Amino acid sequence: MNAELRQHFEKITPLTDQEFNYILSHFTTKKLKKHQFLIQEGDLVTTDHFVVKGLLKASFTNNDGKEHILQFAMEDWWISDFQAYFNQTEATLNIDCIEAVEVLCLSLTNREKLCAEMHKIEHFFRRKSNLGYIALQNRILSLLNNNAKERYEELLKNYPSLFQRVPKTLLASYLGVSRETLSRLSS
Amino acid sequence: MNAELRQHFEKITPLTDQEFNYILSHFTTKKLKKHQFLIQEGDLVTTDHFVVKGLLKASFTNNDGKEHILQFAMEDWWISDFQAYFNQTEATLNIDCIEAVEVLCLSLTNREKLCAEMHKIEHFFRRKSNLGYIALQNRILSLLNNNAKERYEELLKNYPSLFQRVPKTLLASYLGVSRETLSRLSS
Repeated sequence: MNAELRQHFEKITPLTDQEFNYILSHFTTKKLKKHQFLIQEGDLVTTDHFVVKGLLKASFTNNDGKEHILQFAMEDWWISDFQAYFNQTEATLNIDCIEAVEVLCLSLTNREKLCAEMHKIEHFFRRKSNLGYIALQNRILSLLNNNAKERYEELLKNYPSLFQRVPKTLLASYLGVSRETLSRLSS
Repeated sequence: MNAELRQHFEKITPLTDQEFNYILSHFTTKKLKKHQFLIQEGDLVTTDHFVVKGLLKASFTNNDGKEHILQFAMEDWWISDFQAYFNQTEATLNIDCIEAVEVLCLSLTNREKLCAEMHKIEHFFRRKSNLGYIALQNRILSLLNNNAKERYEELLKNYPSLFQRVPKTLLASYLGVSRETLSRLSS
């Protein structure tokens, strides 16, 4: 059970059955329907989430009601309001389901416990964080340097499956372009 | 010696003298003058750098010769072309000295060796990477949501010392605004 999570860990570090079952015992399962919220702005954020099935987005809504999408997450990705999670404070982001979702939830307490008890899990999360850091640096460079067409083509190249599953309006919000611009690019 | 590096590690994890001296033995020292390059585009990137003294910038120069600043680093910060460092590939960034610089260099081999040998060092670098990830997410949100004035004020609030030391032209490049816009904001 939860072969997805095990495969995910074992891309970086091998685990015995006993080790994996111990790790898994620190997660809880949550199922949400399409359009439900995993985290709403103002919630105390206690958990990080590994996506077993489905598609979500993390976004920030400014004072004018405009939504900026910070992150999508589908199978095999993690999603949370990481600032609020690591500081155990209230969410500034909203995370909601673009499709029906099943996630495995890991509290910060359990994450730190596993990392302290099992060096290989600390290693796993360091490596994951390094990879995430590089991806965000690339996104910043893309925002600074690339025009809408280049950002669109980059996303299409790196995450082709997102284009099958994410409505165009949301892709436009992620890319920081208007829906009309995106239509022109994708036609 | 190298009290700065020790204090830096000990913000997250306590170390004995013996442990710190062992860690330090994995670093090499490099001194550069103002305007020298620590890393040039195309270099094989073998080291990450802890800044003991001075100020640097990491930037990307596009095909039109326009420079986008990804990161500044001063005392107590780390700087490298992290994508190239973690993948041991050629730099796509340039890193050069805004002031004369002294850095402590850590090769990827030595970083992984220390992390494997000392669980507390793996913990240290995981925590550092988590903090870096959060900072980059905030910068992305700032680029998506804030106008030039708001980005300027945010940088001034978070990193007041940068404003004393970084030429206005470079601040403008970091913020993604023109030099003229920045002059208007800062007057």
